Amino acid sequence: MTTTETPVDNGVDIDFLREAREALTAEPEAAKFQWRVTNTWVRGTHSQTTTEAYFGLGEEQHRPREHRFDSDHPELFMAEDEGATPTEVLLAALAGCLTAGVATVASNRDIQLRSVRATLEGDMDVRGIMGLDTDVRNGFSSIKVTYAIDADASADDIEALVAQSQKRSAVYDIITNPTNVTVEVA
Amino acid sequence: MTTTETPVDNGVDIDFLREAREALTAEPEAAKFQWRVTNTWVRGTHSQTTTEAYFGLGEEQHRPREHRFDSDHPELFMAEDEGATPTEVLLAALAGCLTAGVATVASNRDIQLRSVRATLEGDMDVRGIMGLDTDVRNGFSSIKVTYAIDADASADDIEALVAQSQKRSAVYDIITNPTNVTVEVA
Repeated sequence: MTTTETPVDNGVDIDFLREAREALTAEPEAAKFQWRVTNTWVRGTHSQTTTEAYFGLGEEQHRPREHRFDSDHPELFMAEDEGATPTEVLLAALAGCLTAGVATVASNRDIQLRSVRATLEGDMDVRGIMGLDTDVRNGFSSIKVTYAIDADASADDIEALVAQSQKRSAVYDIITNPTNVTVEVA
Repeated sequence: MTTTETPVDNGVDIDFLREAREALTAEPEAAKFQWRVTNTWVRGTHSQTTTEAYFGLGEEQHRPREHRFDSDHPELFMAEDEGATPTEVLLAALAGCLTAGVATVASNRDIQLRSVRATLEGDMDVRGIMGLDTDVRNGFSSIKVTYAIDADASADDIEALVAQSQKRSAVYDIITNPTNVTVEVA
């Protein structure tokens, strides 16, 4: 096993994360974060979302760059396809969260990753959003995530890695459990 | 009222959507859609998600371009901030869905929009994702969306517009209600 000789490097600073766990255990108030985005309508179903400063560790946290997302509906709905559909953006959120978790858990378990790839499928009956059948929900009836992972680990360890990522994923929790959303007009 | 003289144009093809409602009422099988994305790990907590072909109206639907999202964790967590955090991506999904809905409902109600802007805030205690307190959930404790809308409509009509968008939003439904997610390793 070369893994015991060469230190694992997945690009995750696991020592820092272990220290952060200790620090937040000692000071739970610092663990209160707020994430924010701004969304601006462009035209039709096209809008742009940008990330903002966030709050954490007791203060405002500024970041070196802004991240931007376009979202729109596809040409099939006579829209311009200027961005991913919002439901695809939601799948991207889930994928990004689970994959970050896979890399973090792998580092914590001394597993060297070589490649991680996930395909996500979300099934939806659009009669819900079109208001054609009140028995059909607006959102996905189900989401399926399939990982293909190449790593210095057994198939069982890779399964356990993905399961642990799922267990600690913020976005997985938000999607699978009810989350309170209030919508107001200023 | 100039709105009765000048046709409303928010960039939404409302006549098409009305025809689509009729067509899908007649042929409910065509309303079954599947949205898909692929996610590839880059390094650390950084991954990239790309949109794929989707299924709808009984067949595979190809689109003229691919949409791509980077996600990562911020520098505060010793990550590279190569993309939005997955929870910000989730807020972007919610924003994109609600704003597309506002534009569509406005067009259906003959309301001319001039500007639509939303700010979204998601509160999270990161002790959940760090596994420090099993009583703390991984996801957002709550999400607040605040719209500022300039339109040819009364304040009450604007409130009603946003409420109707919420009622028909796929992403709002997915976040506020439980959605089944299965995660597998191929």
